[in-house]
Amino acid sequence: MIGRLNHVAIAVSDIDAATAVYRDTLGAEVSAKEEQPDHGVCTVFINLPNTKIELLEPLGDNSPIAKFLEKNASGGIHHVCYEVDDIIAARDKLLADGARVLGDGEPKIGAHGKPVLFLHPKDFLGTLTELEEA
Amino acid sequence: MIGRLNHVAIAVSDIDAATAVYRDTLGAEVSAKEEQPDHGVCTVFINLPNTKIELLEPLGDNSPIAKFLEKNASGGIHHVCYEVDDIIAARDKLLADGARVLGDGEPKIGAHGKPVLFLHPKDFLGTLTELEEA
Repeated sequence: MIGRLNHVAIAVSDIDAATAVYRDTLGAEVSAKEEQPDHGVCTVFINLPNTKIELLEPLGDNSPIAKFLEKNASGGIHHVCYEVDDIIAARDKLLADGARVLGDGEPKIGAHGKPVLFLHPKDFLGTLTELEEA
Repeated sequence: MIGRLNHVAIAVSDIDAATAVYRDTLGAEVSAKEEQPDHGVCTVFINLPNTKIELLEPLGDNSPIAKFLEKNASGGIHHVCYEVDDIIAARDKLLADGARVLGDGEPKIGAHGKPVLFLHPKDFLGTLTELEEA
């Protein structure tokens, strides 16, 4: 069912400093910073030859990554995202298998403009897992 | 400097149960389980079209992932691994930039038979970061 690893998301408290680590120290290609007020984050993408790292900094009140950064002051890996062909079929298969989908179970439009769902970390090896319809 | 994302490693306490989650629930292709006594882990690879997920279960006494699992009982993302062309050149560049390399700074032969180094999480966004000479 799952296809490509779309991205690995790393939450950080200072996205400019984090971008400099990837651009200058690790020598990677980085995108421009983008504010995503609908998602409560500011994003920078690290473009690797086969996938992306998504840097996330909290934006505004009630950012979905604020609590994670309270617990992980230096930052840390926040989630992984896998691509699926059909997100409704994927969701229904997961629910039938007893896995928990976060929120109301309906796909939302994610930061890349595609339908996404998040799966409960306790059902997926302690790993917050996003599915994105590719 | 960094190239492809070689793998994302997820530490788990029960690798058979974890493999079943990826094989049966997420429908991914999984490798056979392999004991790696030199590295203190048992591994299963999840083969995605563009990269791999590496499942790690502690093996023997003094496994390098034992403490992580004490803190993260459900499992969790342990590290990311990027490919580099020349691991000595990469190490020397990182040291010159003030980044910390774990251990004695000399590459070891990793679980894939290639030279690897681990970088200090505090210098890399709270993320344990492995470099592997591809």
